[in-house]
Amino acid sequence: MCHWYTMRPSELLLLLYCTMAKKGVSLNERQLIEKGHLYYLRHISIDNVIFGFHDNELKVLLLEWKESGRWCLPGGFILKDESVEDAAIRILQSRTGLRDIYLNQFYTFGDPHRDRGNHGIQQPKWMKTKSWFMERFITIGYWALVDFSQVVPKPDEFSASCAWWDVDKVPELILDHNAILAKALQSLRSNLNEYPVGKDLLSQKFTMPELQRLYETILGKALDRRNFQKKILAMDLVDRLGERKTGGAHKAPYLYRFNQRKYERAMKQGLKFGMH
Amino acid sequence: MCHWYTMRPSELLLLLYCTMAKKGVSLNERQLIEKGHLYYLRHISIDNVIFGFHDNELKVLLLEWKESGRWCLPGGFILKDESVEDAAIRILQSRTGLRDIYLNQFYTFGDPHRDRGNHGIQQPKWMKTKSWFMERFITIGYWALVDFSQVVPKPDEFSASCAWWDVDKVPELILDHNAILAKALQSLRSNLNEYPVGKDLLSQKFTMPELQRLYETILGKALDRRNFQKKILAMDLVDRLGERKTGGAHKAPYLYRFNQRKYERAMKQGLKFGMH
Repeated sequence: MCHWYTMRPSELLLLLYCTMAKKGVSLNERQLIEKGHLYYLRHISIDNVIFGFHDNELKVLLLEWKESGRWCLPGGFILKDESVEDAAIRILQSRTGLRDIYLNQFYTFGDPHRDRGNHGIQQPKWMKTKSWFMERFITIGYWALVDFSQVVPKPDEFSASCAWWDVDKVPELILDHNAILAKALQSLRSNLNEYPVGKDLLSQKFTMPELQRLYETILGKALDRRNFQKKILAMDLVDRLGERKTGGAHKAPYLYRFNQRKYERAMKQGLKFGMH
Repeated sequence: MCHWYTMRPSELLLLLYCTMAKKGVSLNERQLIEKGHLYYLRHISIDNVIFGFHDNELKVLLLEWKESGRWCLPGGFILKDESVEDAAIRILQSRTGLRDIYLNQFYTFGDPHRDRGNHGIQQPKWMKTKSWFMERFITIGYWALVDFSQVVPKPDEFSASCAWWDVDKVPELILDHNAILAKALQSLRSNLNEYPVGKDLLSQKFTMPELQRLYETILGKALDRRNFQKKILAMDLVDRLGERKTGGAHKAPYLYRFNQRKYERAMKQGLKFGMH
């Protein structure tokens, strides 16, 4: 048992900061580089690959670094008393404003040369000793599927902007972030059979062509229209609504919606979707 | 560029130890607890779930701790200049004597209370300050499939013995190792469709009932004999040999062997096996 009045001042400060960090208040850039190792675990970081779907394109949320203008995945560190899972959720929330999002841990990247110095990033000149920030980091990768229309992208303390990029137009990222993105996509693909991605990535109501386009984008190949529709309806997870989508040039397609009850039952039973 | 004659004595010692460790020479128990943090990354470990198959049972390799007599998964730490993958391979080799084994990283476990003190393990009394060994560890899990008959189990510096256990008879393990084993089994199951496990777990020549029993043990359910044989032959990865297995009470079953050429082609193409 440990009471706050029996703690040393340094422990009290740690407790105070950890509580603040969990509520979304974080150290500024200078504090993080100088003192971050007092609050966070050394050598371990998290990188989140956040996927969205908009205008028939699969998108990923990226941050632009202030100094170099180079782009990277949104990431962060693990507080000394925080679970890895909670840290990933906190980082996701602070970049997107979203809560209750399913995060999927897909791989941990551990190249011995995974440090900023080896990738052309210098520590600020005002720091005289080597910062923990420049040490080797092993990073744990998570992917999340989010509703594009609900996200308010927010840069972190190191970045000038936060924006969506088409997955197939992503530029050269810092460190090994392109490889992390590629591995996340591969994991997403192999999860397609066990997890109906449409539920998270599309708006509540969607058309069959929109759902098909989503699967095609993730799989990177065209699918047969009739066969796709047959498989989706065989899953028995979506309901066709009475309404049709209006505004298109062609014949207005029907709108569909995931059936929450059937969806939850299928998730529990681990239904196989057999989409690829 | 860095030459050994420009190094400080502490760096030279680090280099020397890392070279030794990679060749299989490791610190003794006392040195590891006192000085391990000079050579290994803090807060990060590796745990290997090593599966074998013998006497129609799926088995897992476990270590018995010297002091408590409790059992655990074989694990270890990551040298400061070593990749996570290389560390996992080094740990596997030092426990089994095997080389060229496929290791599959399946999950990273990051509960904030994952430290030895929280799980009833005290540091030795001779150590006056808190050892790095008692700090919180995030552990990266790998599973491997090995040929039971080729393994020479070897305890590490903390353990009195190293032995195979039937997967369904594993006792209560230290820390969260039972949960790690359960997650490894789950990952192995979901990989059955993409990876023909028989190649690694069975002897070179095997019978169809042996292969079926292996799949049944991993899946934890009975499979239909004719249907199983049909699916396996449809994969076109095994050749039926002219010989039959002798010594059984029943009609001697045919022996089969994986076809190396077809197997490698299938692995490259990512064939689906559809076994469950």
